[in-house]
Amino acid sequence: MSPESNPRAPRIDGERNRAALVAAARRLFDDRGPDTPLNDVAVAAGVANATLYRHFATRADLIVAVYTQEVSELSALAKRLLRATDPAQALSEWLLAFVRHVAAKRDLAQALPDTRDGRRGTLFAEWHTIMHTDAERLLDRAQAVHAVRSEIRATDLLALANGIALTRLPDDRLQALLHVVRHGYAT
Amino acid sequence: MSPESNPRAPRIDGERNRAALVAAARRLFDDRGPDTPLNDVAVAAGVANATLYRHFATRADLIVAVYTQEVSELSALAKRLLRATDPAQALSEWLLAFVRHVAAKRDLAQALPDTRDGRRGTLFAEWHTIMHTDAERLLDRAQAVHAVRSEIRATDLLALANGIALTRLPDDRLQALLHVVRHGYAT
Repeated sequence: MSPESNPRAPRIDGERNRAALVAAARRLFDDRGPDTPLNDVAVAAGVANATLYRHFATRADLIVAVYTQEVSELSALAKRLLRATDPAQALSEWLLAFVRHVAAKRDLAQALPDTRDGRRGTLFAEWHTIMHTDAERLLDRAQAVHAVRSEIRATDLLALANGIALTRLPDDRLQALLHVVRHGYAT
Repeated sequence: MSPESNPRAPRIDGERNRAALVAAARRLFDDRGPDTPLNDVAVAAGVANATLYRHFATRADLIVAVYTQEVSELSALAKRLLRATDPAQALSEWLLAFVRHVAAKRDLAQALPDTRDGRRGTLFAEWHTIMHTDAERLLDRAQAVHAVRSEIRATDLLALANGIALTRLPDDRLQALLHVVRHGYAT
């Protein structure tokens, strides 16, 4: 089909390529770290280098795209869990996903260059706001059914979950630590 | 008094100088970071540079001395707390001291060069063993009076306390997080 017969096709191709690049980058950054050659990302996504650079002019742009997708998925999980029948279980499930996200993506976040335009700080603040808002909603719901002590604050839960992720322990240990924290905020 | 009249005097002077150097280094590393010029440490301790280098041939030797003293003090606190009347309060007090120690001394520990002789790893393992043993004794005592749940392990408490310290939050927040954890391990 030529662009003439369907004027939207190039844009659809562009979206498909972009999604393939982000998916490939996400997999490769996870497996081989945030320094993976961008050339390998293009190969894994099945696109030409030029196509990669048209979508993502710098490595930082690609990292931001991967990270933004992670945050969106975590937020989508929160939206689903806000409709779950057991609010305490929902909060605990989301916190585990958050711990795993921080544990897996910390190196990626650190790899974002701290440019003078303050862009990194702005992005970090945006992502933090999204996650904090989601945590607060899940916490409110668990507190409304008296499953979580009323003095517990979302900011403390996120800080504890962050601290657990920073220990860099294997997943079963992270879960054990979160289990202690869960006892700590429960009524 | 000449060395002839008291043959132990030079050694006593040496010990006094060494203690003054460690105390000065500890203060300066805390205030100005582990890169503080060693010359400033000698001046603050009131000794000549040559005296500093006789006691501590390298910056790493001085860092090890400061860190060893910190660990000894934390261990001395544990010994005192093992005789306290309230074992749960004793455990909680020691954990707060441990969190503060990790929070304050993390940069110092990181500044120890990772030489090929494996010395850093050996020292870290020794310090970890001391702290783990102390935590275990305090925990055993708190569990013996059923103040702490029986399935809680010292290694999890240390990991949680470590994670809290790694958040780099101000002291009042560190205490709030530890408060949640305390609820989490209590019966």
